[in-house]
Amino acid sequence: MKNICILGSTGSIGNTAIDILKENPEEYRLIALGAGRNIELLRAQIEELKPRFAAVVNSELAGKLRASLANRLETEIVAGPDGYIEIATLSEVDLVVAAMSGASGLVPTYSAIRSGKDIALANKETLVAAGSLLMKESRDRNVRIFPIDSEHSAIQQSIQGHNREDLKRIVLTGSGGPFKDYTLEMLATVTPEKALQHPKWKMGKKITIDSATMMNKGLEAIEAKWLFDVDMDQIDIILHPETIIHSMVEYVDGSIIAQLALPNMRLPISYALSYPRHRKGQLPSVDFLEIGHLSFEKPDTKRFRCLDLALEAGYIGQSMPAVLSGANEIAVKAFLDGKITFLEIPRLIEKTMEQHELHPIDSIDRALEADQWARARATVILDKMIGSQLQ
Amino acid sequence: MKNICILGSTGSIGNTAIDILKENPEEYRLIALGAGRNIELLRAQIEELKPRFAAVVNSELAGKLRASLANRLETEIVAGPDGYIEIATLSEVDLVVAAMSGASGLVPTYSAIRSGKDIALANKETLVAAGSLLMKESRDRNVRIFPIDSEHSAIQQSIQGHNREDLKRIVLTGSGGPFKDYTLEMLATVTPEKALQHPKWKMGKKITIDSATMMNKGLEAIEAKWLFDVDMDQIDIILHPETIIHSMVEYVDGSIIAQLALPNMRLPISYALSYPRHRKGQLPSVDFLEIGHLSFEKPDTKRFRCLDLALEAGYIGQSMPAVLSGANEIAVKAFLDGKITFLEIPRLIEKTMEQHELHPIDSIDRALEADQWARARATVILDKMIGSQLQ
Repeated sequence: MKNICILGSTGSIGNTAIDILKENPEEYRLIALGAGRNIELLRAQIEELKPRFAAVVNSELAGKLRASLANRLETEIVAGPDGYIEIATLSEVDLVVAAMSGASGLVPTYSAIRSGKDIALANKETLVAAGSLLMKESRDRNVRIFPIDSEHSAIQQSIQGHNREDLKRIVLTGSGGPFKDYTLEMLATVTPEKALQHPKWKMGKKITIDSATMMNKGLEAIEAKWLFDVDMDQIDIILHPETIIHSMVEYVDGSIIAQLALPNMRLPISYALSYPRHRKGQLPSVDFLEIGHLSFEKPDTKRFRCLDLALEAGYIGQSMPAVLSGANEIAVKAFLDGKITFLEIPRLIEKTMEQHELHPIDSIDRALEADQWARARATVILDKMIGSQLQ
Repeated sequence: MKNICILGSTGSIGNTAIDILKENPEEYRLIALGAGRNIELLRAQIEELKPRFAAVVNSELAGKLRASLANRLETEIVAGPDGYIEIATLSEVDLVVAAMSGASGLVPTYSAIRSGKDIALANKETLVAAGSLLMKESRDRNVRIFPIDSEHSAIQQSIQGHNREDLKRIVLTGSGGPFKDYTLEMLATVTPEKALQHPKWKMGKKITIDSATMMNKGLEAIEAKWLFDVDMDQIDIILHPETIIHSMVEYVDGSIIAQLALPNMRLPISYALSYPRHRKGQLPSVDFLEIGHLSFEKPDTKRFRCLDLALEAGYIGQSMPAVLSGANEIAVKAFLDGKITFLEIPRLIEKTMEQHELHPIDSIDRALEADQWARARATVILDKMIGSQLQ
């Protein structure tokens, strides 16, 4: 029996993780749920699942939640950053599903690792901003990290049973997003509505835009670097529009192991919870005859500058990936709010990166500092960009 | 240091295995070489490698070989079936490379397993004719079998590190051979010369014809059944003309692990010797961008009857696969000798199978008996077929 804490229980990954826990009550006991502001859904989850703890973003919402719950309260409600840390480090918890979005997942995930919890990691900002720290702590404490992400789950499945020293390179695949074949002129006119329609994956807004700009693939390369202890130049990115091959690992003899499946987040979520076993009946079989062929293309970093910026940040290292990630959050929000165009997203990020003075990430505070600096600076640059448009 | 005996040292697999041993003298010591009639090449191998033993097909050739070797003889020459068994069971041998062609590999391979040697297995007739016996012995004696064959090596690489109980099905891929898109009319006119030109793999004559008739893929399905302890209905066969994906394994969650590489026998040979490690520098990387796409097609068992016959024999089990294999050797030789047409190959095999009275394979003699019965009966049927053509 594994005791589970889910951070981000009201998001799509949290919801699927809860489904899997409900289907397998003999394997998992849900101890704690952490959510943000969606206390309606959290209340329903609490009433159904009766976890011992639940955390929300602040004490005001915690109060509301307490008041809305039925009389006989079995769940202790905690609030704010300390609340998240509290539930992520409970002594009875074995595994934390880290599925909060954005930089808010960083501290609770780090705290969970430091208290020896295994992590099912969906929050990519955590590794991007503080990969070196997190991986060092997880090695020191024998913590296992199970990526919840098709690509990194594919890599993990392609590495297990093979000798780590024999790994030559990682081939990270990506669909190319909805605008793969757009010219620069066409990209200039992309609206938020259009960018939110991803052809293959149904996901949250932020990651859907990151997928459209290909920032997502660059962030994944940085994550892969940390998760699998490789250099950036051991990671190749190729586009694979059918999204059946979720990534590959090449070994020193020229042999490649790949993981394939229908594109559905249920699989990596299930696998992160059942590793190294495969749990029955998650997805239907791939019908190769119906699919007919699997194709590959080179990503165009001229049209998709975000990919290039992310790879550059990965090579530079230190605080730069945190800055990339922080600036990207501001840029994506500005695009969704209609303040900047699709092609201005990489411009805003690049300007922020150019103005950054690199520093090491030797503590979680330094990672947060880089993230916050990037958000603040990107906001200033954004205001100037908007100002110059108005003139 | 692994001590090696190579059965079939003068064939293409034997030669490549010798190359790998020569490149890695700190890992392997060559103890014995077994060859058939090519004593010229065997003599050169003996003089270069100085094994302690060598075996040839009969005492006449053994005498010739002894006479042709330089005075100071470090290699003991043995002959005939007993000679092969002797070198395959030498107490100092750790691993036997079983690369003899046809049914002649059966007894020495079986003897090697019974004396506890690990086997690098290239001889497919062995598993086809006596899979149940061989696998039982190898389990009882903790013998490991490393398939030398792109498909089964791919499956082995896709299984290691995953739980055997989670396996759902095996997807065996095949190029489809040189006549994949031929109509029945075109197949009727195929000559031996044409059939010997395989587009992807450079191999011996017998296996090249088996590849053209797709018998090879059916034999591989039977081998896979034994090697990986699955039922025939857990094995799907799909054509994959680019021959980059060498086979796949699907797990119960819908996740598929596949092995990919350039098509070159060097890789499975090297891997069988280095398992579970990958040995550096066997093949160049696959260039997915140059290849562009990987395609899949359904095999047509109407045009390629041999595939159907082999699958049928696999389902029937007992002595039928040995009969299939024995009749196939006669049919392929008759085709190469210009006695029957390409489409008569499956007819001859099918008639032999129809006339067979099934019996269990509960000893190696019973497997040999089935093989010999099939050869004799196929020869009789062949003579009748030729006779009726002449009338």
